[in-house]
Amino acid sequence: MSGSPAIGALKRLFNPMTSAGHVFELFTLFLIVLSAVSVGLETLPDLPAWTTRAFLAEETIIVGVFTVEYVLRIAAAERKLAYILSFYGLIDAISVLPYYVTGLDMRAMRAFRLLRMLRVLKFARYSAASDRLVRAFRDIRAELAVFLTATGIIIYLCAIAIFHFEHAAQPNKFRSVFDGMWWAATTLTTVNFGDVVPITVGGKIFTALVLLCGVGIVAVPTGLVAAALTKLRSQKEDARPDQ
Amino acid sequence: MSGSPAIGALKRLFNPMTSAGHVFELFTLFLIVLSAVSVGLETLPDLPAWTTRAFLAEETIIVGVFTVEYVLRIAAAERKLAYILSFYGLIDAISVLPYYVTGLDMRAMRAFRLLRMLRVLKFARYSAASDRLVRAFRDIRAELAVFLTATGIIIYLCAIAIFHFEHAAQPNKFRSVFDGMWWAATTLTTVNFGDVVPITVGGKIFTALVLLCGVGIVAVPTGLVAAALTKLRSQKEDARPDQ
Amino acid sequence: MSGSPAIGALKRLFNPMTSAGHVFELFTLFLIVLSAVSVGLETLPDLPAWTTRAFLAEETIIVGVFTVEYVLRIAAAERKLAYILSFYGLIDAISVLPYYVTGLDMRAMRAFRLLRMLRVLKFARYSAASDRLVRAFRDIRAELAVFLTATGIIIYLCAIAIFHFEHAAQPNKFRSVFDGMWWAATTLTTVNFGDVVPITVGGKIFTALVLLCGVGIVAVPTGLVAAALTKLRSQKEDARPDQ
Amino acid sequence: MSGSPAIGALKRLFNPMTSAGHVFELFTLFLIVLSAVSVGLETLPDLPAWTTRAFLAEETIIVGVFTVEYVLRIAAAERKLAYILSFYGLIDAISVLPYYVTGLDMRAMRAFRLLRMLRVLKFARYSAASDRLVRAFRDIRAELAVFLTATGIIIYLCAIAIFHFEHAAQPNKFRSVFDGMWWAATTLTTVNFGDVVPITVGGKIFTALVLLCGVGIVAVPTGLVAAALTKLRSQKEDARPDQ
Repeated sequence: MSGSPAIGALKRLFNPMTSAGHVFELFTLFLIVLSAVSVGLETLPDLPAWTTRAFLAEETIIVGVFTVEYVLRIAAAERKLAYILSFYGLIDAISVLPYYVTGLDMRAMRAFRLLRMLRVLKFARYSAASDRLVRAFRDIRAELAVFLTATGIIIYLCAIAIFHFEHAAQPNKFRSVFDGMWWAATTLTTVNFGDVVPITVGGKIFTALVLLCGVGIVAVPTGLVAAALTKLRSQKEDARPDQ
Repeated sequence: MSGSPAIGALKRLFNPMTSAGHVFELFTLFLIVLSAVSVGLETLPDLPAWTTRAFLAEETIIVGVFTVEYVLRIAAAERKLAYILSFYGLIDAISVLPYYVTGLDMRAMRAFRLLRMLRVLKFARYSAASDRLVRAFRDIRAELAVFLTATGIIIYLCAIAIFHFEHAAQPNKFRSVFDGMWWAATTLTTVNFGDVVPITVGGKIFTALVLLCGVGIVAVPTGLVAAALTKLRSQKEDARPDQ
Repeated sequence: MSGSPAIGALKRLFNPMTSAGHVFELFTLFLIVLSAVSVGLETLPDLPAWTTRAFLAEETIIVGVFTVEYVLRIAAAERKLAYILSFYGLIDAISVLPYYVTGLDMRAMRAFRLLRMLRVLKFARYSAASDRLVRAFRDIRAELAVFLTATGIIIYLCAIAIFHFEHAAQPNKFRSVFDGMWWAATTLTTVNFGDVVPITVGGKIFTALVLLCGVGIVAVPTGLVAAALTKLRSQKEDARPDQ
Repeated sequence: MSGSPAIGALKRLFNPMTSAGHVFELFTLFLIVLSAVSVGLETLPDLPAWTTRAFLAEETIIVGVFTVEYVLRIAAAERKLAYILSFYGLIDAISVLPYYVTGLDMRAMRAFRLLRMLRVLKFARYSAASDRLVRAFRDIRAELAVFLTATGIIIYLCAIAIFHFEHAAQPNKFRSVFDGMWWAATTLTTVNFGDVVPITVGGKIFTALVLLCGVGIVAVPTGLVAAALTKLRSQKEDARPDQ
């Protein structure tokens, strides 16, 4: 059904369910983490000069391995174009391309290699769990879109309101409605960094009322996820009643 | 059943399910977003003088389009008063009225045009999802009212308590119980901006205890929404078991 | 079955389901809110001298009304001791007692009158909803106790850990484990006021790990409430399938 | 079936279901709390010299009692090695070992004695509740692992992004990607202490978008816990329909 014995060996290598594939997956996982940590380490200030050479050598080796892997994956794929345009195919390409594109400082793009780590979720133990999470989010896609639209409108209206309450009192902090949007987005998600705070009586009363309703807003996505997972869980229960 | 052919054409235009209505909806959506963004841009400091004229011209055109649309919607409506007094009828009126009322600075009210964006939720793909969200909130209306009443009482009691703990130590920050209410509302919603912080031992112990219970308070609306959505979802499941 | 006609009239007055009781309930509600707002207003700085006399007069009238009401409620009760020791009986007593106890500054205790507002939840429209909320909390009482015990232990362990990480670097902010407890309680509830912040590398790594697990901790009471309300809601559904 | 009468007496002592075991459990609970509070009190600055001797004496007595208890628990256990290697066996050993190891400052390890408090959850009233919580977490173990992996990747990607947005503007606050990780971990859990705040336009827009999605991230563990508890609760319902 597949091609030559070499292609068959490659397919086993790229299938995390086989023991060879498991070892290969762990090996690439190690390279991904090593590469990702290097992206962070390189930004440390006051590094000695030799580290630049070391990071370059490490990067060359890792890109070499990943380029060979990318070519072999194309060779092993039955439908080559489908692999190239798939989520993992694009991630694999993005993992190596920045190295070959000179003249641009695309070192940071190497961080997207981390998305390759998601392959680890294909391991038998976690594949069912990640399937359930993905299906739960797919089930509530439309509701999440409605929620995000409504939240966006609410944030903009709150931004305009807080701007009118606070602009006169704090012209340097609330310079325009866009400062108000920063305030509204961080406040409604209950993060607020403490950098932009209402000081007028009107602004404070408005904020307190918005926050009390905001508790309800944050409740919506949680409720959606909980309801979707509850349904999936009861379906699983029906399918395997002896679990 | 309806009136003349002109009225029939208008009805198709205002029905987002038809292709003409779809295009018209996207066109008004574009005008709404353009107008809303302008409300924000106008507040930017140090704008050159010509922008004032540009914003006025843009506003005149948009209000013209929306005024014509409003009149046509009344003409197309079977029960004209019902439309005028409906949620969208009032929003449509509020969208254009501020422009015609001179002497008052009601520019900010144009922001309410954003509520017209909610019409986009009538599109086929999202109408079922937004219906479910609205029905979920309607199901838990009474519980939410009880919850907000109880939360209001708790906030006032916490405000009085923290005022008595902190007033002597920080007379400028906790000037009265109303400063305490600002603290209580922002703290119980876990936002606190860091502008009013207890410093006495009694105030800190009280705050820690309130926060541990506050986790339970925030849990209530989330639990209500989750329970309502779980019920709706299982009902949908029963109605369309083949989905 | 009950006593004299006067007792019967009192019973109707104190039953919020009758129209006389409804009006009386709204009247006392007005007095409670008036009294509670006064507790706040009194704390405003720089009030003119006449306000002290006004607040005293208002308080005397309100306490008079509530004292008469308290005596009449005892008279109307079939089992007088049961009323006196009931939740609302104790609240009613606490509402008026502080006024008669001189020598102590118990003005703040008047705030507990706000708890009388909970009577409003007995109104027909909200009684079912508040019953459901109370029953949901009763259902998860044991789980909440376990959760709070575990959370208390976690907070204390986190307090000791952060004290050892940060004490040497910030001896004025982390003076003892008790400062660490303040930090742990505010941080695990995601409130943190920004007054006590880790600055060492060890303290930051520890904090990040604790926060990621802390998301799971906050999830527990929400999940408990959601699960309890889901069950109650499906039971209601079974009882009244035609709703 | 068991050994001598002495062993039988010990078994009753160590079984919290018997009245002797109940009293003994409360007694050790008292010693644990006393010991834990002492760990905190010892860190208070400016303690008089005699307190050092008092804390040492208290510690010697408590460790003495716990050492005797540990030896007796081994004697009473049917499978001695199983007890020694069990969760509570290890906790019991860790409770006393630091005292006997000199030369190391392991006083803080005494805090782990607090974990012995978890034994209190075996009391009849709470054992069912804590069983349900433990089972709920076991049910969602795989999903939580997937969630934490994905969250870890997201935090690292956000850290790299915010570093590139803010490094040039705030070189002292965003010195490297690791400062970005501190920012990302505290912000995505909605805690942010206000010590590291984006100030560039790009950084603020990125933060606002991440926060809106972050609401969805926090929703996942809550939804998982809620769904698992809903299932467990409905199973309990099926088993005891008359409750």
